[in-house]
Amino acid sequence: MTDQRAPRKRGRPRGGSDSRERIIAAAVDEFGESGYDASTIRSIATRAGVDSALVHHYFGTKADLFAEAIGIPLRPDVDVPGIVAGPRDEVGQRLVRYILDAFEQPEIRRRGVMLIRTAIGSRLTSPLLAGFLSRELIGKIARTLEVPDAELRATLVASQVAGLLITRYVLRLAPIAAASVDELTARVGPTVQRYLFD
Amino acid sequence: MTDQRAPRKRGRPRGGSDSRERIIAAAVDEFGESGYDASTIRSIATRAGVDSALVHHYFGTKADLFAEAIGIPLRPDVDVPGIVAGPRDEVGQRLVRYILDAFEQPEIRRRGVMLIRTAIGSRLTSPLLAGFLSRELIGKIARTLEVPDAELRATLVASQVAGLLITRYVLRLAPIAAASVDELTARVGPTVQRYLFD
Repeated sequence: MTDQRAPRKRGRPRGGSDSRERIIAAAVDEFGESGYDASTIRSIATRAGVDSALVHHYFGTKADLFAEAIGIPLRPDVDVPGIVAGPRDEVGQRLVRYILDAFEQPEIRRRGVMLIRTAIGSRLTSPLLAGFLSRELIGKIARTLEVPDAELRATLVASQVAGLLITRYVLRLAPIAAASVDELTARVGPTVQRYLFD
Repeated sequence: MTDQRAPRKRGRPRGGSDSRERIIAAAVDEFGESGYDASTIRSIATRAGVDSALVHHYFGTKADLFAEAIGIPLRPDVDVPGIVAGPRDEVGQRLVRYILDAFEQPEIRRRGVMLIRTAIGSRLTSPLLAGFLSRELIGKIARTLEVPDAELRATLVASQVAGLLITRYVLRLAPIAAASVDELTARVGPTVQRYLFD
């Protein structure tokens, strides 16, 4: 969690709010039209009619700006690589618990489900989520792993986490939707652990 | 695989093709409006203006009619319980290979991806897929397992399989999209095996 995560809820910085709003709007348009990989801070700045330095100043990296643009107050790209790089014992359990604890928060769940529905439901938006996941999450996790096939391992983790979120929060299949975070952590954590290290 | 799976490709039965088409159209409407659980052979027959017995005669069970209505030439509800009920050794690998081999067929992949996109993308259609998965797939698998928590176990399998299909065929995340069926079977099979039996 970082202070930049939900700045609009924490009051605007003095001045510059017009530029901030223009940059966000430009980012939404640019990510939507060009996809995650092809969008750059520069192309977003140009679209917003501001200098790239101002975009960096307000929002940091492209991943930061993407998180801001989609409005989800969760930064797995910031938090998850830290979890994976931590003590190897029970990394899987800690990762599953982190994701589920986040989605148990109504605002994260609401926006997360919307993002999943949109990204999977549309041929146009799937590459946007895929690009973000690959570059900012799977790529970062893979670099912290000192094992062969790190990219495939990290993507297998993504597959189980995506399936868990979809069955619990989107399709709401009864046994998974009704299970506690503890129960699911105990069942799914070892899968993640095995994909990462075995 | 059964002979009823793709009857429209195998030529129509002599006569009655009007009734068949009317029943299919009524099934699409009824499943879409009422969801899987609330739709019945009787309600579909009424909507089509035919007798229930004719629906049974042409299409068999509600699950058969659903498969026909969504037009996907894959019957996991018929095949998967048999796999799970087979020799316990490497059930997980056989199940993962069955699903992936099916989706490697272009026509199944095309329709399967469309079904996943539609069912997850829309709040209206999610309960339709969830109902079918619960009643016809997860429920059947659970009944073949002689273990505690069978419903939860079967649903965890569904979560991993759903995530695998989505990352490989919908989001097309590179390391999973590029992996061979053999490689994915070896990596994901033990997860399914563990969810079912450990």
